[in-house]
Order: sequence, then C-alpha cells, then structure tokens
Amino acid sequence: MLRDVPEWTLAEQIRARPTEPVALARPLEVSQLPTPALVVDRAAFESNLGRMAQHAASFGKGLRPHAKTHKCPIVARRQLETGAVGICVAKVSEAVALASAGIAPLLITSPVTAPGKVAVLERLADEFQGIGVVVDSEVGMGLLERMGPANGLAVLVDLDVAMGRTGTRDDDLARRLVERIQAVDHLDFMGFQHYAGHVMHIQGHAARSEASLVLWERVLERLGRIGVRYDVLTGCGTGTFDIDCAVQQITDMQVGSYVFMDEEYRQIGGRHSERFADFEVSLTVACTALSQPAAGAVTVDGGYKSIASDTVPPAVDELPNTQYRFAGDEHGVLVSRAALQSVRLGDVVRVVSPHCDPTVNLHDVFWVLEADGMIRTCWPITARGCTW
Amino acid sequence: MLRDVPEWTLAEQIRARPTEPVALARPLEVSQLPTPALVVDRAAFESNLGRMAQHAASFGKGLRPHAKTHKCPIVARRQLETGAVGICVAKVSEAVALASAGIAPLLITSPVTAPGKVAVLERLADEFQGIGVVVDSEVGMGLLERMGPANGLAVLVDLDVAMGRTGTRDDDLARRLVERIQAVDHLDFMGFQHYAGHVMHIQGHAARSEASLVLWERVLERLGRIGVRYDVLTGCGTGTFDIDCAVQQITDMQVGSYVFMDEEYRQIGGRHSERFADFEVSLTVACTALSQPAAGAVTVDGGYKSIASDTVPPAVDELPNTQYRFAGDEHGVLVSRAALQSVRLGDVVRVVSPHCDPTVNLHDVFWVLEADGMIRTCWPITARGCTW
Repeated sequence: MLRDVPEWTLAEQIRARPTEPVALARPLEVSQLPTPALVVDRAAFESNLGRMAQHAASFGKGLRPHAKTHKCPIVARRQLETGAVGICVAKVSEAVALASAGIAPLLITSPVTAPGKVAVLERLADEFQGIGVVVDSEVGMGLLERMGPANGLAVLVDLDVAMGRTGTRDDDLARRLVERIQAVDHLDFMGFQHYAGHVMHIQGHAARSEASLVLWERVLERLGRIGVRYDVLTGCGTGTFDIDCAVQQITDMQVGSYVFMDEEYRQIGGRHSERFADFEVSLTVACTALSQPAAGAVTVDGGYKSIASDTVPPAVDELPNTQYRFAGDEHGVLVSRAALQSVRLGDVVRVVSPHCDPTVNLHDVFWVLEADGMIRTCWPITARGCTW
Repeated sequence: MLRDVPEWTLAEQIRARPTEPVALARPLEVSQLPTPALVVDRAAFESNLGRMAQHAASFGKGLRPHAKTHKCPIVARRQLETGAVGICVAKVSEAVALASAGIAPLLITSPVTAPGKVAVLERLADEFQGIGVVVDSEVGMGLLERMGPANGLAVLVDLDVAMGRTGTRDDDLARRLVERIQAVDHLDFMGFQHYAGHVMHIQGHAARSEASLVLWERVLERLGRIGVRYDVLTGCGTGTFDIDCAVQQITDMQVGSYVFMDEEYRQIGGRHSERFADFEVSLTVACTALSQPAAGAVTVDGGYKSIASDTVPPAVDELPNTQYRFAGDEHGVLVSRAALQSVRLGDVVRVVSPHCDPTVNLHDVFWVLEADGMIRTCWPITARGCTW
C-alpha cells in the first residue's frame, strides 16, 4: 500500500473532523446567528427525506442519495435511516469523511486516475465494508488492478451518452473494463452508472422528460450491445426524479439536491407547476443588513464567499418583490421597496441559495432551525472542502 | 463584554487553526499533488510583493494590502516585512485569524452591525494593539459606542460615492459619525475609507483611470465639505494601483489581488498593454485529467467547488489554444487539440484562477512551488471560510 502520498496525511486530517451534532450552549434565534450562516429548516428537510423515500419505494427503486450536496454524515445517516440503499460521494476525500463516520455503503461516482487517491481508496476498502467506485478508462482500471488485496472493492463502469464529462462512450472499452474487473479477486463488478447532469436543469418538465428518456433508451441499447449481466444500474438526479423512475432497468437513483432544494431547481418547473415545488426549500443563507448607501437598496453580509455564484442569483422569499444582487466576495445588495421599508441595519434576512451543493461547500456547519423558531444544534459539514 | 454569543465560540475555533508553514514529509512535484490543489509560485509571489512595495514607495504611499485575497498570516507577514503599514481584512472573523497569528495593525474594511461581532471586536481590541474598523451608520456607531473599555479601537468613516455597497453618501452623517467617534474615549478617529470596487475591472486603462479619478475628486470635495482633519485616507485596489497613486491625499492603498493575480484582472488591460501584466500570475489550481468521454476534450477534477465561478472561466496558460469550461461542482473540461495531443489521463494541468479571492476561500492550504519545481511547504489558509 502506497503510504508516502500527501493524500494519506490529508485523509488523517479529515478523519479528525467532527461528525456528530453539536448542541449549542443556549438556543439561538435566526436573528442571533453569526451571519452569513447556513440554516437548515428541520421540518422541511425531514419532509423532503420522506417524500423522496416514498416516491422511490412506490416505483420499486432504490435510493442512493448523493452526499456531494450536503457533505454531512448526519444527513447521510438520516437518508439511510429512511431507506436509502447507499450513499454516493463525488470524490475519495468525501468517502473518507463519511466512511469514518460509519456511513455505508458508499459509491464514489467520479473516476479516479491518480495513484495517491487510489492508495487512500485501497485503505478505505480494507477498513470499511461497502466501498465502491466507478471506472471509465484503461488508466483508471490499471490503478484499481494494481491495488493490494482489498476488502472487496465494488466497481461500476461509468457510461456517457451525451454529457461529455465522465463515462465512456465506447462499448468495447466498457466490456473490456467489465472483464478486467471480473478477472481480479479484489474487485467486485457491480454494474453500470449513467448520469446525465446536463439534463437536470432543462426548463419545463415535458422537455426534460423527453431529453432524459431518450438518453436512457440509448443507455439500454448500449447495455444490450455490451451484453453483460449487472446488478446495479444507477443514475438520475433531482431534476428527473419523477421521470427516470419510469425506466424499469434503473435500480437506484442518485438524487442529491432534493434534501435542500435551491433557486436553480425551482426555476426548472415541475410536472404540473411552473415552479419545481415537489420538495421544499429547507436550506437558506442568513445574512445581516450592513449598510444602506443608496436609496432603494440594503447591503447584506453574504457574497461570493458564502453563496454559490455559478448560476441564478439567490431568491429572497421572505420579502415581497425583492431581488438579491451579488456585490462582490463579501456582500450582496437587496433591492426593492419592501427591503427599504421593513429591513433595518442589523436585521437578519434569509435568502434561498442559488445552487445548494457549492453553497454548502462554503460553510463549516448547518444551523438546524426547529419548528419553534429556535436553533439548538449545529451539524458539522464534515466533508467541506473535500474536493480531491 | 458580551460573551454569550455564538461568535465567541467560533472565534475560539479560529484561534486554534494552524498559522505557520507546514513542512512536507517529502518534496512533491506538481504532478504528485492531491488535486484540485492551490499552488503558489514563490518566485512570482515574491516578485509581486516587491513590485507593489516599490511602486507604493515611489509615490510616497503606504501599502495596506487586503488579506481578503489570501486569508493567510504567512502572506500577511511577508507583506508587512516588505513595508506594508498594515493589513486589511473584510470581516471580524478574518481579523481573529490574523490577529491571533501576530499580524498588526489590522483594519476591518466592512462595517459591523451585529452585537455578537462587536463583542468579538471588543475582545480583539482589548487583546491586540492596532485593531481598526470602519463605520458608516448610526446603528453601527451605537454598537461601537456601547463597547466596554477597549485598547483604543481605531475607527474610520466609510464613504461611498457611486458603488452603492458600503459607506455613506451623506456628508452630515459622516461628520456626525466623526464627532461621535471623537467623543468616546475607547475609540480613536483615524480617517476615511473610500473603496470603489466597481471601478477595478473597467476594461482599458484610460477608461478605468478616468472613472477612478472622477470618484476621488468627488471624495475630496466631500472631505472638504465634511471639514474634519484626518490622518488616513485609504482605498484603491489592484485595478487602480497605478492610477490612484496620483491622488495626493490618499495615504495608503488597499490592494489585494496583486499578490496572486487572476484571469479577470489580466483581461482589464494595463497602462501600456492589452493584458494587465504588471504583476505575475503566482496562483494556479492544479487539476488532474480524469476522463475523456468525447473526442476533442479532457475532463479534469476541478469545478465550482475548487475554482471561483463568479466571473470569466479559468485560463489554461500551460496548453496552447486551450479553453477550460466548467462542468459542474467537481469537474471542468479542457477543450483544444493541444489538450488531446499532450494531456493523458492522470496528468496534472494547472489553470489560472478566474478570481483569486473566492478561489482561495475554497481551499485549506497553499502548496508553495519553489524555483526548482519542487513543493516542500504548505501554507495554511487560516481564515478560509471566515466570512462573518
């Protein structure tokens, strides 16, 4: 086992991070939070867990929720307690954070092509049951083959049809990878992954549905040509949760954002509604009003460093007709008459994150808001910054 | 002193973070980094420090570099060692991280309107010499006045002319704030701040120069009307480093990005060149090639969670005619013939960050690249995530 790699040291540091809920010294109101602060509404969060679990069960699908959204073993544990068959992570370092907290089984959904990361993967597979990873290249396969004896690392072949991110489009390569997995004692062939991230935010349910189902048809055709028996066919995201469930061969769904929701997802539209509202927004960023240099606007203390900026702006549900505009790394500006009339300097306003996954990754903890309006607990975002 | 606030606990946690360089167990090449990894080229970094110090000195200006860019006491110390008169931070939590590492004096450049943050500010001012903060409202002033006896907190009045983020546009309010600062024993009136963040990225040196100097003229007119003597007039950023130095009344320059540079700044143009190249790019994000699902592209392992996405895409200086396109939270795609021809899966490619400040905030350490191509040291990004 390759121990002389920097990933080994980093993994030790990740394993020392807190993984359990932290009780606050005294209950806080939202107005007392050290803003910008990430707030999880527990009732909405639990409702989302239940809604997705019920949906998956009603279609006979497994749930393998993606922890890249929340990076938190406490959330992952709730997903497993409510029926998930396993948890997905994007990177080896996220697997370290969750495995150390007792979360299993874990599937790493991005291929690994670096020896240092495979060394940590090997160690994880030795120490924990139920570690899995995807492979999509000869290079990645070579690294997995050269691992020492591991505790049965599960391997899936990642297929791409049209996204062009990870996965192979080559049926012959896919078949060779399966054969190589099956030829090695320490690797267990588990099945196939197909994730069409570019479909998730297609505007309008009908258009999204058509795009997703066409891709799955092509996946099924390819699986026919590859001609290998498999136990698992995993994929799907929150944007296609009520679309891909119609594909009989899919065994489990890698939905992530549904636990928190975000403005980007709300804008894609639902099956029967202009806004995608099957799940509640449980995640908000609490910001404090700092300054009011110009009429018609209030500056708050959350910007690029606390709210993801890769997509639409945050939404301000709390105030009517109010827009949030980014104003740099540390600030945003609320614009509306309502903001002027009701927000005073020092007030806390919560905004809906534009994109939950990268917003969560900017914070160290979730502040858990209870139904009585009080916050008594923090959940550490154990895998925050675990991007390797 | 208000101790019963969550900020107090968070400050304790920040003070426990590492602040000194960490020697690696063995030297690494860039190809061995746990990617995505933030790399600082020491020679380019030192060259930037020297270039800016020499520039400021030649105009008789003080340097008060902004640590919101680097969030690292080791970098701040080098800035002080090369002649800076002080260090700026954006938030109280950043001040905690740097003050605890012995960095002084520190100016918090964003107003504070929350009692919990003022409690930590009070403690900082009691414990450390040279803590300063800006104020721009009666609300903020009231909190500063109610602080217990502190070790001479320096206070500047923040002026806004046209940005509309922080600072007051009201001369009477500005004068009242000065009077209230001067009326309180534990507050020391230091002067005025004017930061025009919206000017920094105006395309073309001539247009930027005109925009910035017009604003400074208006600031000086306002200072005449306010009619208060001041020691410090602070402002300016990397984009106007060679423009605002012509304003005689400015005492010190809050430049930040110059230590690292980024693609967004390179694109604004320099005084005599199409690209802004007065400072070298010393900061890159090392990524590993993961996958190649489609011809003409290679997927790497850095996305929104490791590279700031609020502006232009990252640049790929290492490969000719190659573009980086974001492909989600964990991935990017390099597109070019060159990428296809020379990049193999497992290879490490470094990209120039689009925007250095929020990119740095996504990482826990800088990997310091020496002139011999080896990395022997990490610098902890102590104030990473310190956004409150």
